[in-house]
Amino acid sequence: MTQLLRVQNFSVSSDGIAADEGQSLARPFGDTVDPERLFAWAGATAGWPGRTDSGGSRGLDDYFTRDFAHNIGAEIMGRNKFGPQRGPWTDHEWLGWWGDEPPFHTPVFVLTHHERPSFTLSDTTFHFVGGDPAAVLEQAREAARGKDVRLGGGVTTVRRFLETDLVDTLHVAVVPVRFGAGLRLWESPDELLDRFHLEVVPSPSGVAHHLFWRK
Amino acid sequence: MTQLLRVQNFSVSSDGIAADEGQSLARPFGDTVDPERLFAWAGATAGWPGRTDSGGSRGLDDYFTRDFAHNIGAEIMGRNKFGPQRGPWTDHEWLGWWGDEPPFHTPVFVLTHHERPSFTLSDTTFHFVGGDPAAVLEQAREAARGKDVRLGGGVTTVRRFLETDLVDTLHVAVVPVRFGAGLRLWESPDELLDRFHLEVVPSPSGVAHHLFWRK
Repeated sequence: MTQLLRVQNFSVSSDGIAADEGQSLARPFGDTVDPERLFAWAGATAGWPGRTDSGGSRGLDDYFTRDFAHNIGAEIMGRNKFGPQRGPWTDHEWLGWWGDEPPFHTPVFVLTHHERPSFTLSDTTFHFVGGDPAAVLEQAREAARGKDVRLGGGVTTVRRFLETDLVDTLHVAVVPVRFGAGLRLWESPDELLDRFHLEVVPSPSGVAHHLFWRK
Repeated sequence: MTQLLRVQNFSVSSDGIAADEGQSLARPFGDTVDPERLFAWAGATAGWPGRTDSGGSRGLDDYFTRDFAHNIGAEIMGRNKFGPQRGPWTDHEWLGWWGDEPPFHTPVFVLTHHERPSFTLSDTTFHFVGGDPAAVLEQAREAARGKDVRLGGGVTTVRRFLETDLVDTLHVAVVPVRFGAGLRLWESPDELLDRFHLEVVPSPSGVAHHLFWRK
Protein backbone atom coordinates (compact mmCIF):
# COMPACT_ATOMS: atom_id res chain seq x y z
CA MET A 1 0.00 0.00 0.00
CA THR A 2 1.00 3.60 -0.56
CA GLN A 3 2.53 5.46 2.38
CA LEU A 4 0.33 8.49 2.93
CA LEU A 5 1.30 11.83 4.44
CA ARG A 6 -1.55 12.58 6.86
CA VAL A 7 -2.53 15.61 8.92
CA GLN A 8 -4.54 14.36 11.91
CA ASN A 9 -6.54 16.01 14.68
CA PHE A 10 -5.27 19.41 13.62
CA SER A 11 -7.41 21.93 15.48
CA VAL A 12 -8.18 25.44 14.27
CA SER A 13 -10.60 28.11 15.45
CA SER A 14 -13.69 28.98 13.43
CA ASP A 15 -11.63 31.82 11.96
CA GLY A 16 -8.93 29.36 10.85
CA ILE A 17 -6.29 30.17 13.48
CA ALA A 18 -4.07 27.45 14.99
CA ALA A 19 -1.27 29.43 16.69
CA ASP A 20 0.07 32.96 17.02
CA GLU A 21 3.31 34.89 17.22
CA GLY A 22 4.77 35.35 20.69
CA GLN A 23 5.38 31.69 21.53
CA SER A 24 6.95 31.17 24.96
CA LEU A 25 7.14 28.52 27.67
CA ALA A 26 4.03 30.01 29.25
CA ARG A 27 2.21 30.45 25.91
CA PRO A 28 3.20 27.46 23.72
CA PHE A 29 0.63 28.45 21.07
CA GLY A 30 1.48 32.16 21.17
CA ASP A 31 -0.32 35.28 22.29
CA THR A 32 -3.91 34.79 21.17
CA VAL A 33 -4.38 31.03 21.20
CA ASP A 34 -5.55 29.16 24.31
CA PRO A 35 -4.71 25.47 23.70
CA GLU A 36 -7.21 24.33 26.31
CA ARG A 37 -10.03 25.74 24.23
CA LEU A 38 -8.54 24.40 21.02
CA PHE A 39 -8.13 20.81 22.26
CA ALA A 40 -11.02 20.47 24.74
CA TRP A 41 -12.94 18.29 22.25
CA ALA A 42 -10.05 15.81 22.10
CA GLY A 43 -9.30 15.83 25.81
CA ALA A 44 -12.88 14.76 26.56
CA THR A 45 -12.53 11.47 24.66
CA ALA A 46 -11.55 8.01 25.91
CA GLY A 47 -8.83 7.77 23.25
CA TRP A 48 -6.95 10.96 24.20
CA PRO A 49 -3.28 9.92 24.54
CA GLY A 50 -2.88 11.89 27.78
CA ARG A 51 -5.76 10.17 29.53
CA THR A 52 -4.86 8.19 32.65
CA ASP A 53 -8.35 7.17 33.84
CA SER A 54 -10.88 4.86 32.17
CA GLY A 55 -13.46 7.59 31.47
CA GLY A 56 -14.08 9.75 28.44
CA SER A 57 -16.59 9.75 25.61
CA ARG A 58 -16.61 7.02 22.95
CA GLY A 59 -18.63 8.81 20.30
CA LEU A 60 -17.51 10.42 17.03
CA ASP A 61 -14.70 12.55 18.47
CA ASP A 62 -13.15 9.43 19.96
CA TYR A 63 -12.78 7.82 16.53
CA PHE A 64 -10.48 10.68 15.63
CA THR A 65 -8.35 10.65 18.76
CA ARG A 66 -7.89 6.90 18.68
CA ASP A 67 -6.96 6.99 14.99
CA PHE A 68 -4.02 9.26 15.88
CA ALA A 69 -1.37 6.52 16.10
CA HIS A 70 -3.07 3.97 13.87
CA ASN A 71 -0.74 2.87 11.04
CA ILE A 72 1.58 5.85 11.67
CA GLY A 73 5.29 5.07 11.47
CA ALA A 74 6.86 8.53 11.76
CA GLU A 75 6.00 12.18 12.37
CA ILE A 76 7.28 15.37 10.77
CA MET A 77 6.94 18.53 12.89
CA GLY A 78 8.04 22.14 12.63
CA ARG A 79 10.58 23.51 15.02
CA ASN A 80 8.02 25.61 16.88
CA LYS A 81 5.96 22.55 17.71
CA PHE A 82 9.09 21.08 19.32
CA GLY A 83 9.89 24.14 21.44
CA PRO A 84 10.21 27.91 21.78
CA GLN A 85 13.95 28.25 20.98
CA ARG A 86 14.98 30.04 17.79
CA GLY A 87 18.35 30.06 15.98
CA PRO A 88 21.22 27.70 16.88
CA TRP A 89 20.51 25.05 19.53
CA THR A 90 22.13 26.59 22.60
CA ASP A 91 19.93 24.78 25.15
CA HIS A 92 20.37 21.02 24.67
CA GLU A 93 18.52 20.40 27.93
CA TRP A 94 15.26 21.16 26.10
CA LEU A 95 13.79 17.81 25.03
CA GLY A 96 10.36 18.98 23.86
CA TRP A 97 7.12 19.81 25.69
CA TRP A 98 6.12 16.26 26.47
CA GLY A 99 8.22 15.03 29.40
CA ASP A 100 9.73 11.55 29.58
CA GLU A 101 6.95 9.82 27.63
CA PRO A 102 6.26 11.71 24.40
CA PRO A 103 2.98 10.63 22.77
CA PHE A 104 4.55 9.80 19.38
CA HIS A 105 6.15 6.35 19.89
CA THR A 106 7.88 6.60 16.49
CA PRO A 107 10.77 8.51 14.93
CA VAL A 108 10.01 12.26 14.80
CA PHE A 109 11.67 14.57 12.27
CA VAL A 110 11.98 18.15 13.52
CA LEU A 111 12.53 20.74 10.78
CA THR A 112 15.43 23.08 11.52
CA HIS A 113 18.25 24.87 9.72
CA HIS A 114 20.55 24.18 12.66
CA GLU A 115 22.34 20.93 13.46
CA ARG A 116 21.58 19.00 16.60
CA PRO A 117 22.20 15.33 17.47
CA SER A 118 19.27 12.92 17.58
CA PHE A 119 18.07 11.74 20.99
CA THR A 120 15.60 9.18 22.30
CA LEU A 121 12.99 9.52 25.04
CA SER A 122 11.20 6.27 25.84
CA ASP A 123 10.12 4.90 22.41
CA THR A 124 10.28 8.24 20.55
CA THR A 125 13.47 9.31 18.74
CA PHE A 126 13.81 12.95 17.65
CA HIS A 127 15.89 13.71 14.56
CA PHE A 128 16.74 17.29 13.51
CA VAL A 129 16.70 17.72 9.77
CA GLY A 130 17.06 20.43 7.15
CA GLY A 131 16.29 20.29 3.47
CA ASP A 132 13.16 20.84 1.42
CA PRO A 133 9.85 19.18 2.33
CA ALA A 134 10.18 16.45 -0.30
CA ALA A 135 13.58 15.38 1.03
CA VAL A 136 12.37 15.35 4.64
CA LEU A 137 9.31 13.33 3.64
CA GLU A 138 11.56 10.83 1.91
CA GLN A 139 13.56 10.35 5.15
CA ALA A 140 10.39 10.03 7.22
CA ARG A 141 8.90 7.48 4.82
CA GLU A 142 11.98 5.33 5.07
CA ALA A 143 11.89 5.52 8.88
CA ALA A 144 8.16 4.66 8.88
CA ARG A 145 8.88 1.19 7.41
CA GLY A 146 5.85 0.96 5.19
CA LYS A 147 3.45 2.80 7.48
CA ASP A 148 2.03 6.30 6.94
CA VAL A 149 3.71 9.53 8.00
CA ARG A 150 1.93 12.07 10.19
CA LEU A 151 2.45 15.75 9.46
CA GLY A 152 2.15 17.01 13.01
CA GLY A 153 2.14 20.76 12.51
CA GLY A 154 2.38 23.54 13.50
CA VAL A 155 0.35 25.60 11.13
CA THR A 156 3.32 27.03 9.22
CA THR A 157 4.61 23.52 8.55
CA VAL A 158 1.24 22.26 7.36
CA ARG A 159 0.95 25.23 4.97
CA ARG A 160 4.45 24.64 3.65
CA PHE A 161 3.72 20.97 2.84
CA LEU A 162 0.37 21.92 1.30
CA GLU A 163 2.12 24.47 -0.91
CA THR A 164 4.47 21.76 -2.17
CA ASP A 165 1.45 19.47 -2.68
CA LEU A 166 2.83 16.62 -0.58
CA VAL A 167 -0.18 16.08 1.72
CA ASP A 168 -2.50 13.13 0.99
CA THR A 169 -5.18 13.49 3.68
CA LEU A 170 -6.09 16.11 6.28
CA HIS A 171 -8.35 15.92 9.27
CA VAL A 172 -8.92 19.45 10.57
CA ALA A 173 -11.14 19.95 13.61
CA VAL A 174 -12.78 23.38 13.38
CA VAL A 175 -13.53 24.40 16.96
CA PRO A 176 -16.36 26.80 17.89
CA VAL A 177 -14.12 29.57 19.24
CA ARG A 178 -12.75 32.73 17.59
CA PHE A 179 -9.24 34.00 18.27
CA GLY A 180 -9.43 37.05 15.99
CA ALA A 181 -5.71 37.23 15.21
CA GLY A 182 -2.91 34.73 14.69
CA LEU A 183 -1.44 32.30 12.19
CA ARG A 184 -4.09 30.96 9.86
CA LEU A 185 -4.31 27.56 8.25
CA TRP A 186 -6.74 29.09 5.75
CA GLU A 187 -9.10 31.94 5.11
CA SER A 188 -11.60 29.26 4.14
CA PRO A 189 -11.44 25.46 3.69
CA ASP A 190 -12.66 26.05 0.14
CA GLU A 191 -9.08 26.97 -0.76
CA LEU A 192 -8.25 23.27 -0.85
CA LEU A 193 -11.17 22.10 -2.97
CA ASP A 194 -9.25 22.24 -6.23
CA ARG A 195 -7.07 19.37 -5.04
CA PHE A 196 -9.07 17.59 -2.34
CA HIS A 197 -12.42 16.01 -1.70
CA LEU A 198 -14.03 17.40 1.46
CA GLU A 199 -16.55 15.99 3.90
CA VAL A 200 -17.64 18.20 6.80
CA VAL A 201 -18.96 16.17 9.74
CA PRO A 202 -20.51 18.06 12.66
CA SER A 203 -19.92 16.50 16.06
CA PRO A 204 -22.24 16.80 19.07
CA SER A 205 -19.28 18.47 20.83
CA GLY A 206 -19.66 21.50 18.53
CA VAL A 207 -16.55 20.70 16.50
CA ALA A 208 -16.89 20.42 12.72
CA HIS A 209 -14.55 17.70 11.52
CA HIS A 210 -13.19 18.54 8.06
CA LEU A 211 -11.96 15.46 6.20
CA PHE A 212 -9.93 16.07 3.06
CA TRP A 213 -8.47 13.50 0.72
CA ARG A 214 -6.75 13.92 -2.59
CA LYS A 215 -8.78 13.94 -5.80
CA MET B 1 -6.62 -0.66 30.14
CA THR B 2 -9.94 -2.50 30.21
CA GLN B 3 -10.59 -5.01 27.45
CA LEU B 4 -13.80 -3.90 25.78
CA LEU B 5 -16.34 -6.03 23.94
CA ARG B 6 -17.08 -4.03 20.79
CA VAL B 7 -19.64 -4.36 18.01
CA GLN B 8 -18.17 -2.67 14.92
CA ASN B 9 -19.49 -1.80 11.46
CA PHE B 10 -22.66 -3.74 12.13
CA SER B 11 -25.04 -2.78 9.33
CA VAL B 12 -28.82 -2.82 9.61
CA SER B 13 -31.61 -1.52 7.38
CA SER B 14 -33.64 1.53 8.36
CA ASP B 15 -36.20 -0.93 9.73
CA GLY B 16 -33.54 -2.56 11.92
CA ILE B 17 -33.03 -5.78 9.93
CA ALA B 18 -29.60 -7.38 9.56
CA ALA B 19 -30.39 -10.88 8.27
CA ASP B 20 -33.31 -13.20 7.61
CA GLU B 21 -34.31 -16.82 7.86
CA GLY B 22 -33.58 -19.02 4.84
CA GLN B 23 -29.78 -18.70 4.90
CA SER B 24 -28.04 -20.68 2.14
CA LEU B 25 -24.84 -20.64 0.11
CA ALA B 26 -26.56 -18.42 -2.44
CA ARG B 27 -28.23 -16.20 0.21
CA PRO B 28 -25.73 -15.88 3.11
CA PHE B 29 -27.93 -13.24 4.79
CA GLY B 30 -31.20 -15.10 4.19
CA ASP B 31 -34.26 -14.49 2.06
CA THR B 32 -34.90 -10.77 2.33
CA VAL B 33 -31.45 -9.27 2.92
CA ASP B 34 -29.19 -8.25 0.05
CA PRO B 35 -25.68 -7.89 1.54
CA GLU B 36 -24.53 -5.71 -1.35
CA ARG B 37 -27.03 -3.06 -0.35
CA LEU B 38 -26.22 -3.47 3.33
CA PHE B 39 -22.45 -3.09 2.93
CA ALA B 40 -22.18 -0.75 -0.06
CA TRP B 41 -21.20 2.15 2.24
CA ALA B 42 -18.24 0.16 3.59
CA GLY B 43 -17.15 -1.28 0.25
CA ALA B 44 -16.77 2.25 -1.14
CA THR B 45 -14.07 3.20 1.38
CA ALA B 46 -10.28 3.03 1.10
CA GLY B 47 -10.11 1.05 4.35
CA TRP B 48 -12.43 -1.79 3.31
CA PRO B 49 -10.53 -5.02 4.11
CA GLY B 50 -11.49 -6.58 0.77
CA ARG B 51 -10.10 -3.73 -1.30
CA THR B 52 -7.24 -4.62 -3.64
CA ASP B 53 -6.79 -1.27 -5.45
CA SER B 54 -5.61 2.07 -4.06
CA GLY B 55 -8.96 3.87 -4.57
CA GLY B 56 -11.88 4.41 -2.25
CA SER B 57 -13.16 7.34 -0.21
CA ARG B 58 -11.28 8.62 2.83
CA GLY B 59 -14.10 10.52 4.49
CA LEU B 60 -16.15 9.66 7.55
CA ASP B 61 -17.17 6.14 6.50
CA ASP B 62 -13.49 5.28 6.06
CA TYR B 63 -12.76 6.02 9.74
CA PHE B 64 -15.15 3.23 10.61
CA THR B 65 -13.85 0.64 8.17
CA ARG B 66 -10.23 1.28 9.10
CA ASP B 67 -11.02 1.08 12.80
CA PHE B 68 -12.26 -2.50 12.25
CA ALA B 69 -9.02 -4.26 13.22
CA HIS B 70 -7.57 -1.52 15.42
CA ASN B 71 -6.72 -2.86 18.90
CA ILE B 72 -8.82 -5.99 18.31
CA GLY B 73 -7.29 -9.23 19.57
CA ALA B 74 -10.11 -11.74 19.02
CA GLU B 75 -13.59 -12.06 17.52
CA ILE B 76 -16.70 -13.87 18.72
CA MET B 77 -19.22 -14.84 16.04
CA GLY B 78 -22.41 -16.83 15.84
CA ARG B 79 -22.52 -20.07 13.95
CA ASN B 80 -24.62 -18.60 11.13
CA LYS B 81 -22.00 -15.97 10.44
CA PHE B 82 -19.51 -18.80 9.98
CA GLY B 83 -21.65 -20.82 7.58
CA PRO B 84 -25.05 -22.23 6.59
CA GLN B 85 -24.71 -25.68 8.22
CA ARG B 86 -26.94 -26.56 11.16
CA GLY B 87 -26.65 -29.37 13.70
CA PRO B 88 -23.55 -31.60 14.02
CA TRP B 89 -20.56 -30.69 11.84
CA THR B 90 -20.88 -33.23 9.03
CA ASP B 91 -19.03 -31.14 6.42
CA HIS B 92 -15.52 -30.41 7.72
CA GLU B 93 -14.54 -29.11 4.29
CA TRP B 94 -16.45 -25.92 5.05
CA LEU B 95 -13.92 -23.38 6.34
CA GLY B 96 -16.08 -20.25 6.38
CA TRP B 97 -17.14 -17.82 3.67
CA TRP B 98 -13.84 -16.01 3.37
CA GLY B 99 -11.45 -18.19 1.36
CA ASP B 100 -7.79 -18.68 2.23
CA GLU B 101 -7.30 -15.22 3.74
CA PRO B 102 -10.05 -14.47 6.26
CA PRO B 103 -10.20 -10.77 7.20
CA PHE B 104 -9.90 -11.37 10.96
CA HIS B 105 -6.16 -12.01 11.55
CA THR B 106 -6.87 -13.06 15.16
CA PRO B 107 -8.39 -16.01 16.99
CA VAL B 108 -12.13 -16.33 16.19
CA PHE B 109 -14.56 -18.05 18.55
CA VAL B 110 -17.54 -19.60 16.74
CA LEU B 111 -20.54 -20.32 18.98
CA THR B 112 -21.89 -23.84 18.55
CA HIS B 113 -23.39 -26.65 20.60
CA HIS B 114 -21.46 -29.19 18.52
CA GLU B 115 -17.80 -30.10 18.84
CA ARG B 116 -15.36 -29.44 16.05
CA PRO B 117 -11.56 -29.18 16.10
CA SER B 118 -9.92 -25.77 15.73
CA PHE B 119 -8.23 -24.96 12.42
CA THR B 120 -6.06 -22.16 11.07
CA LEU B 121 -6.28 -20.31 7.75
CA SER B 122 -3.43 -17.86 7.18
CA ASP B 123 -3.28 -15.82 10.44
CA THR B 124 -6.84 -16.56 11.58
CA THR B 125 -7.58 -19.51 13.88
CA PHE B 126 -11.18 -20.64 14.29
CA HIS B 127 -12.21 -22.23 17.59
CA PHE B 128 -15.64 -23.83 18.12
CA VAL B 129 -17.01 -23.21 21.57
CA GLY B 130 -20.14 -23.79 23.61
CA GLY B 131 -21.12 -22.34 26.96
CA ASP B 132 -22.85 -19.15 27.99
CA PRO B 133 -21.82 -15.74 26.64
CA ALA B 134 -19.83 -14.79 29.75
CA ALA B 135 -17.71 -17.95 29.54
CA VAL B 136 -17.06 -17.48 25.82
CA LEU B 137 -16.11 -13.85 26.40
CA GLU B 138 -13.67 -14.95 29.08
CA GLN B 139 -11.95 -17.30 26.61
CA ALA B 140 -11.85 -14.62 23.93
CA ARG B 141 -10.40 -12.04 26.31
CA GLU B 142 -7.61 -14.38 27.26
CA ALA B 143 -6.84 -15.08 23.59
CA ALA B 144 -6.90 -11.32 22.83
CA ARG B 145 -3.86 -10.77 25.09
CA GLY B 146 -4.91 -7.40 26.49
CA LYS B 147 -6.60 -6.10 23.34
CA ASP B 148 -10.34 -5.63 22.82
CA VAL B 149 -12.72 -8.34 21.60
CA ARG B 150 -14.97 -7.79 18.60
CA LEU B 151 -18.49 -9.17 18.71
CA GLY B 152 -18.83 -9.93 15.01
CA GLY B 153 -22.51 -10.88 14.75
CA GLY B 154 -24.82 -12.06 13.34
CA VAL B 155 -27.81 -10.28 14.69
CA THR B 156 -28.95 -13.13 16.97
CA THR B 157 -25.53 -13.23 18.59
CA VAL B 158 -25.42 -9.47 19.13
CA ARG B 159 -28.87 -9.58 20.75
CA ARG B 160 -27.84 -12.45 22.99
CA PHE B 161 -24.78 -10.58 24.29
CA LEU B 162 -26.83 -7.40 24.73
CA GLU B 163 -29.38 -9.35 26.78
CA THR B 164 -26.60 -10.56 29.09
CA ASP B 165 -25.28 -6.98 29.26
CA LEU B 166 -21.75 -7.87 28.15
CA VAL B 167 -21.35 -5.32 25.33
CA ASP B 168 -19.30 -2.17 26.03
CA THR B 169 -19.58 -0.25 22.72
CA LEU B 170 -21.60 -0.63 19.52
CA HIS B 171 -21.18 0.98 16.16
CA VAL B 172 -24.30 0.27 14.10
CA ALA B 173 -24.53 1.64 10.56
CA VAL B 174 -28.19 2.26 9.71
CA VAL B 175 -28.40 1.99 5.93
CA PRO B 176 -31.09 3.81 3.88
CA VAL B 177 -32.83 0.67 2.63
CA ARG B 178 -35.89 -1.20 3.94
CA PHE B 179 -36.11 -5.00 3.91
CA GLY B 180 -39.61 -5.22 5.44
CA ALA B 181 -39.11 -8.64 7.07
CA GLY B 182 -36.25 -10.47 8.73
CA LEU B 183 -34.26 -10.69 11.94
CA ARG B 184 -34.19 -7.37 13.75
CA LEU B 185 -31.44 -5.91 15.88
CA TRP B 186 -34.07 -3.59 17.35
CA GLU B 187 -37.46 -2.03 16.83
CA SER B 188 -35.74 1.26 17.65
CA PRO B 189 -32.26 2.27 18.84
CA ASP B 190 -33.99 3.92 21.80
CA GLU B 191 -34.27 0.46 23.36
CA LEU B 192 -30.60 0.74 24.37
CA LEU B 193 -30.71 4.22 25.89
CA ASP B 194 -31.22 3.00 29.44
CA ARG B 195 -27.72 1.52 29.39
CA PHE B 196 -25.84 3.39 26.68
CA HIS B 197 -24.95 6.88 25.53
CA LEU B 198 -25.85 7.38 21.86
CA GLU B 199 -24.49 9.69 19.18
CA VAL B 200 -26.08 9.54 15.73
CA VAL B 201 -23.74 10.80 13.00
CA PRO B 202 -25.13 11.17 9.48
CA SER B 203 -22.67 10.39 6.70
CA PRO B 204 -22.73 11.91 3.20
CA SER B 205 -23.18 8.32 1.96
CA GLY B 206 -26.67 8.28 3.46
CA VAL B 207 -25.74 5.95 6.32
CA ALA B 208 -26.50 7.09 9.88
CA HIS B 209 -23.70 5.88 12.13
CA HIS B 210 -25.06 5.03 15.59
CA LEU B 211 -22.36 5.10 18.26
CA PHE B 212 -23.25 3.60 21.63
CA TRP B 213 -21.11 3.40 24.71
CA ARG B 214 -21.91 2.28 28.18
CA LYS B 215 -23.21 4.78 30.73
